[in-house]
Amino acid sequence: MAPASRHGNVTLAIDVMGGDHAPDATLLGCERARKQFPQLRYNLFGDQEIIQDKLASLPELKKISTITHTSDIIENEAKPSVAIRKGRNSSMALAIKAVRDGKAQGVVSAGNTGALMAFGKLILRMLQGIDRPAIGADMPTKHGYVVMLDLGGNITCDANNLFEFSVMGHAYANAHLGIENPSIGLLNIGTEENKGNEAVQAAASMLRDNDLNLNFYGFVEGNDIGKHVVDVVVTDGFTGNVALKAMEGSANLMSHVLKEKLLSSLFGRLGALIARPALRSYKDHFDPRLNNGAMFLGLNGIVIKSHGSMDEIGFANAIKVALDMAENKINDQIIEHMMQAGHIPPDDDNVDEEENAA
Amino acid sequence: MAPASRHGNVTLAIDVMGGDHAPDATLLGCERARKQFPQLRYNLFGDQEIIQDKLASLPELKKISTITHTSDIIENEAKPSVAIRKGRNSSMALAIKAVRDGKAQGVVSAGNTGALMAFGKLILRMLQGIDRPAIGADMPTKHGYVVMLDLGGNITCDANNLFEFSVMGHAYANAHLGIENPSIGLLNIGTEENKGNEAVQAAASMLRDNDLNLNFYGFVEGNDIGKHVVDVVVTDGFTGNVALKAMEGSANLMSHVLKEKLLSSLFGRLGALIARPALRSYKDHFDPRLNNGAMFLGLNGIVIKSHGSMDEIGFANAIKVALDMAENKINDQIIEHMMQAGHIPPDDDNVDEEENAA
Repeated sequence: MAPASRHGNVTLAIDVMGGDHAPDATLLGCERARKQFPQLRYNLFGDQEIIQDKLASLPELKKISTITHTSDIIENEAKPSVAIRKGRNSSMALAIKAVRDGKAQGVVSAGNTGALMAFGKLILRMLQGIDRPAIGADMPTKHGYVVMLDLGGNITCDANNLFEFSVMGHAYANAHLGIENPSIGLLNIGTEENKGNEAVQAAASMLRDNDLNLNFYGFVEGNDIGKHVVDVVVTDGFTGNVALKAMEGSANLMSHVLKEKLLSSLFGRLGALIARPALRSYKDHFDPRLNNGAMFLGLNGIVIKSHGSMDEIGFANAIKVALDMAENKINDQIIEHMMQAGHIPPDDDNVDEEENAA
Repeated sequence: MAPASRHGNVTLAIDVMGGDHAPDATLLGCERARKQFPQLRYNLFGDQEIIQDKLASLPELKKISTITHTSDIIENEAKPSVAIRKGRNSSMALAIKAVRDGKAQGVVSAGNTGALMAFGKLILRMLQGIDRPAIGADMPTKHGYVVMLDLGGNITCDANNLFEFSVMGHAYANAHLGIENPSIGLLNIGTEENKGNEAVQAAASMLRDNDLNLNFYGFVEGNDIGKHVVDVVVTDGFTGNVALKAMEGSANLMSHVLKEKLLSSLFGRLGALIARPALRSYKDHFDPRLNNGAMFLGLNGIVIKSHGSMDEIGFANAIKVALDMAENKINDQIIEHMMQAGHIPPDDDNVDEEENAA
């Protein structure tokens, strides 16, 4: 990843009111990220009175922040269609508009996922050359993280969507995980070339035969994710969402049973006590706060979704994702690749760039 | 589950030569199951000389077994199309033919999955009223198992397929897990009624509006599997296979990291030593041998696939699955349900049954 000093200040729009523990978790998350990344500036969206009250005890955060007042909040349970109609002046919508208007380089929200995606599409529109957005995030592995997408942005995807997701995942892994030429795998039910449905078959052809020199590995299976076989795992939003939640469920189940077994006997409890630092380190390895922050890729602006249940540590991590994406200009990377792949028709401005690139 | 004494003898056809540890694991698995289920009889398919040699030290198993000799074996790596052409006299194919010819009530094989499915369809044909086969198996949860299907039989499924899978999963949970009226959930990316793709939407309608009084719960998500929210989780073969392997991968990753963390410090090792029985009990909870044995549902005969890597304990469990399915006449249950649902056109014989059922 690029050292922080390479870039100038980065202003992020923060939906202070979104999430289960807002505004404490969001504001303390901002403070936490501020200490680590001095280049951060914030535009805080939410109830001015509440925010000012909290900032009174956070003078350094106050110094680098501006506040935009609104008393409108998107409810967690609101349907996206309702949120869009009634939430035009919500902290979420106004924060996204700040990105559209160039007042911020990215937005972070722990609010309603569907509403955030709907407002993102409505206000920012799609990125040049991209048909459909995808949700991408880091997944823990034995060593480090892999990027997985789509985690639920689109429930049906054709080969072209999967190709676009691959290009976006590549840029994500580069900008956020700092991997120079990340390897890309298409999630499938087998690794042989003839396996899978029409969409993954055709997407594999597109990834093999293009002018991008993408580091396409081929097909990967569900159990390859945690092994870090590739840096970027690409799939449709239905499969990706089910797989993500199945893995979360599996992890919860295993933690539950481990705890139950250890606590059910004296020797179990004693052993756990003695091995506490090791068990803590095990738990930390899978701490969901440390890979919190999913990006809505394919929008014409950086939109990062924090999990709604996150505390300040988790929210600070989502801010870090937004910062990486802004500093490393992920969307410029994506546009450049889509041009090279011939997915963006050359206009007068683009022709020069294409000639330079060739 | 029905007590063993209720039924007469059950003869199973065993593909002795299939699997990584054949013929030892298969024959010792037969012996192990024999001790537990005195009603078992075997028809062993494979190299007569090898089998007789092994049976010399297993006199009780020898007594209840007949041997059908063949020296042909399906290779693990063989493509199904090649296997079908060249493997007509293989231990796998002959064992399936024994089921077709009424000489055995089910077949168990740890061999090549694709070949087993291809031969199953070719030799046994589809069950009346069922369009597509599905692979179903037990998945561990906090308490007991749930049935999940399809785990990779069909990569694209329409609503009708998902409906059939639901009926088959219902019969599976009843026959093998002994659940009277198992609850059924459709795997989706959210639990709200409006979520999901066309196939799950239409399948949900079919499951809500039918004459079966199936215990349809609604949609479930990936993390609901391990929570045992429903007894039967239904999905298409692409999603099911990816989810299954993602969960396996997640479990492997967590076990790997737990072991690594415990072994990396003195206190970790000491604590693990003291808590050994608890850690063993934790490991046993997820022992893949104890839920080994997947059924190829929808074929006109009982075909059980053991994982290729299984030892005798795992293979014995696959035999137990076949026994449960045979004793509880799973395919009769499925046909009866498909008739009630109007998916099997009534002929002269069926009309009476339908009238009685009404």
